[in-house]
Amino acid sequence: MERFFDPQSVVVVGASNTPFNLGSTICNMLKDYLHYDGNVYAVNSKGEAVNGYPGYSSIPDLPQTPDLAVIIVAARHVPGIIRDCARKGIRHVVIESAGFSEGGEIGEAMQREIDAIARQNGIRMLGPNCLGTLSSRNKFCCFYGVNPSLVEMNQIFESPGSISYIIQSGGVVVLTLESLYYDLVGVNKVVSIGNKCDVDEADLIEYFQKDETEVIGIYLENIADGRKLMEAARKSRKPVLVYKVGKTKEGAQAAMSHTAGMANNDRIFDAACRQAGIIRLQSIDELHSLPKIFTEMPLLKGKRIAAFTNSGAFGGISADLLVQAGLQMVRLSPQTQEKLKKVGQVFNIKNPVDIGPAPPQTYLDIFEILLSAEEVDGLLPLLSVWQPFVIDCLLELMKICKRYEKPAAIYTPNAISKSVAIRARHRLPIFETTEQAVRALSVSQTYFASLLKRNLTGDRPLWGAGLNTDHRSTGEALS
Amino acid sequence: MERFFDPQSVVVVGASNTPFNLGSTICNMLKDYLHYDGNVYAVNSKGEAVNGYPGYSSIPDLPQTPDLAVIIVAARHVPGIIRDCARKGIRHVVIESAGFSEGGEIGEAMQREIDAIARQNGIRMLGPNCLGTLSSRNKFCCFYGVNPSLVEMNQIFESPGSISYIIQSGGVVVLTLESLYYDLVGVNKVVSIGNKCDVDEADLIEYFQKDETEVIGIYLENIADGRKLMEAARKSRKPVLVYKVGKTKEGAQAAMSHTAGMANNDRIFDAACRQAGIIRLQSIDELHSLPKIFTEMPLLKGKRIAAFTNSGAFGGISADLLVQAGLQMVRLSPQTQEKLKKVGQVFNIKNPVDIGPAPPQTYLDIFEILLSAEEVDGLLPLLSVWQPFVIDCLLELMKICKRYEKPAAIYTPNAISKSVAIRARHRLPIFETTEQAVRALSVSQTYFASLLKRNLTGDRPLWGAGLNTDHRSTGEALS
Repeated sequence: MERFFDPQSVVVVGASNTPFNLGSTICNMLKDYLHYDGNVYAVNSKGEAVNGYPGYSSIPDLPQTPDLAVIIVAARHVPGIIRDCARKGIRHVVIESAGFSEGGEIGEAMQREIDAIARQNGIRMLGPNCLGTLSSRNKFCCFYGVNPSLVEMNQIFESPGSISYIIQSGGVVVLTLESLYYDLVGVNKVVSIGNKCDVDEADLIEYFQKDETEVIGIYLENIADGRKLMEAARKSRKPVLVYKVGKTKEGAQAAMSHTAGMANNDRIFDAACRQAGIIRLQSIDELHSLPKIFTEMPLLKGKRIAAFTNSGAFGGISADLLVQAGLQMVRLSPQTQEKLKKVGQVFNIKNPVDIGPAPPQTYLDIFEILLSAEEVDGLLPLLSVWQPFVIDCLLELMKICKRYEKPAAIYTPNAISKSVAIRARHRLPIFETTEQAVRALSVSQTYFASLLKRNLTGDRPLWGAGLNTDHRSTGEALS
Repeated sequence: MERFFDPQSVVVVGASNTPFNLGSTICNMLKDYLHYDGNVYAVNSKGEAVNGYPGYSSIPDLPQTPDLAVIIVAARHVPGIIRDCARKGIRHVVIESAGFSEGGEIGEAMQREIDAIARQNGIRMLGPNCLGTLSSRNKFCCFYGVNPSLVEMNQIFESPGSISYIIQSGGVVVLTLESLYYDLVGVNKVVSIGNKCDVDEADLIEYFQKDETEVIGIYLENIADGRKLMEAARKSRKPVLVYKVGKTKEGAQAAMSHTAGMANNDRIFDAACRQAGIIRLQSIDELHSLPKIFTEMPLLKGKRIAAFTNSGAFGGISADLLVQAGLQMVRLSPQTQEKLKKVGQVFNIKNPVDIGPAPPQTYLDIFEILLSAEEVDGLLPLLSVWQPFVIDCLLELMKICKRYEKPAAIYTPNAISKSVAIRARHRLPIFETTEQAVRALSVSQTYFASLLKRNLTGDRPLWGAGLNTDHRSTGEALS
């Protein structure tokens, strides 16, 4: 599987100098954006070179056997090309061309044909009808059609992160990467699986157990093999977040015209997810907004939450949302209330704790009191950033969370643009709405409960995804 | 009521030069930000001038009877001040001080006392425990504590708009105005009602029927008089959007410590809202994100929606969301499908209509075909902005919507920062997620149905809130 993400040599079949040629966009990205240092070959009818990469008119002519073939030609040519790959000894193929099982009977027949050829020759296949792979650490990407709006993807390669995505649709890949760019956590690997004729989401969940991945985000339009997926998820020691289209009959039908899935029964899927510890996402945005609760904060090990706010209104809102999310507004003990009273400037020493104008030390004292309290499992701090020192307090809060191994889901009631700017500048895991912050706590607790049920907690510190402290400090990959 | 928003003279009781004095922030805003041209007086114990506004040591000393008194002193002094106001003939008072019924028995007694004095003397009172009023067209605002983060409020006064807000909490006022700054629609008036001892949400709904308001946004922590509110809403010819805290027992309790409301039964409230045509908001963000579907688009008069996308994935997602929101994925007629086929470059001529790379004219042809189709009530265009011409197409779409009197809820699947920038630069009503766009359609249709039920459709064009075309073209207020 590694060769899909870190090939030492690649052939792009279908790359040419014809205007609007899609294969050439892959060559351009490898050369100009990524400065990829492996060998790259172009195959096209004229055998012409593309952006300096040598060109050949057929795969058998290549001077070596590349680790990976990326195919982006009209669907009808693909079966012949797979045969050529087999003959040349190529064992990893990404088929980006569309026009297979998502496009009617002829396409279906062709997909069966390439499947048979690949199986007979021990070829692992990604796609067809997909965007390919990206690995930030290996500085490799074979997405086609990268355009100016994605140039900012450079950021992805400069600051590799710990989320890996398995995404059935190219459009969702682009949206998610773009959104993540404005969020906190970086990308490890991305793979678009399209019609997933061979490699599917279950294979990839398994693969992501052994690399730098801390959180696995998945977007599915259909389930290839439900039993296999659930088995892979059940064994996963990393949170598996899934958004699935097709909750309704109409949604399933629309998805079918896109990546050729069968309609799956959504209720059964939902129950299976709960069994396997899969976290089902409520919106596509959660693919980029939720992972930070796992990567930046300890897991939430119980349901008792203390809310803390310097703008009273949000206390009521957060109490509503916490209860609706299945969490509890903790009843603070008399001792805790007594400590809060001594801090001074506290309007309300019961939960939600509400303060007026106060110096930074007041904030820190309250964080300490609440997170050290035995009855409190986690914190929901809702702090309007009307004074810059609030940011320093939040940075300090991160340390207190680590000390007590309890999470805080931070929300700063400001216009989203301002919150996004503060988050980026100060590397603070700030959520964008009260709803999102509460949801993050709920998901963290659900995940912790599923680890317990699956006997996967072990004796490791349950910080972040529960396993990542080692490679973070050494910069090395887990094995 | 007009005097609360457009007084010709004001006294700020409690404004002084003491450090951190809150009343002085009101004087500073009137003078330095708003260049308010009425008379302003400060009342404080020393009788000192504040930022050039003449100071007096008591209300009876004032050289005239001001239209409005803004009171921001310790709660225990307020009853005496109200008596002074009565003696001086002041008939409109904003009490911004906290420490009344939200703060225990003594506060409750004081609130009853000021209520009695005001009633006996025919004084209309806003608050206590509130932030006051803002009127963009009159360039008036008596909020206290305006700080650098609100300087951008200047924008509010430079581009008056058509949303008026009734908000029980100061914190929510600040968040909503800040968020609206990055959204499309401008503000008309804002009023924070706090403990609403006298003037309440129902009075204000009635008042907003007669000014430039097109949409009324309300944030409530409790209901003062349910029957009165529902009666005012039922008669409203402008959409009334309400977010209410206290859906759960815990939320209601938390709200009580903030603005002193009684817990209200949420289910009864919900049913009453449906009866009265009130649109209940699902999140605070909807206070700023939803109004544009009313101000920028015709109402949705039926439930049959066509989705259109240039990134297949979003077709499936939107079908799911539309059906879950109670709308329908329209089954396109054979004639409509035939027309779409003739356009070319259409992957899927059934709903969701999905296209690949195509020139601008293709987009415009499809918009025209779908919006002119008798079976289509509204459009959900989900267009990735990967080519600048998409923006021109969307601007053209606005005109087509107006021609056929059918709305489109636009979503451009891009990172939120990019969508926000495009929206502002091109004045396009772009929603921030698929969920938000679908929700806007659903709300528009619900509102139209309630107008029908309440016999309020009349024979006016149902563009925007159904009443606003006149003053938009002439720039004048409706009477």
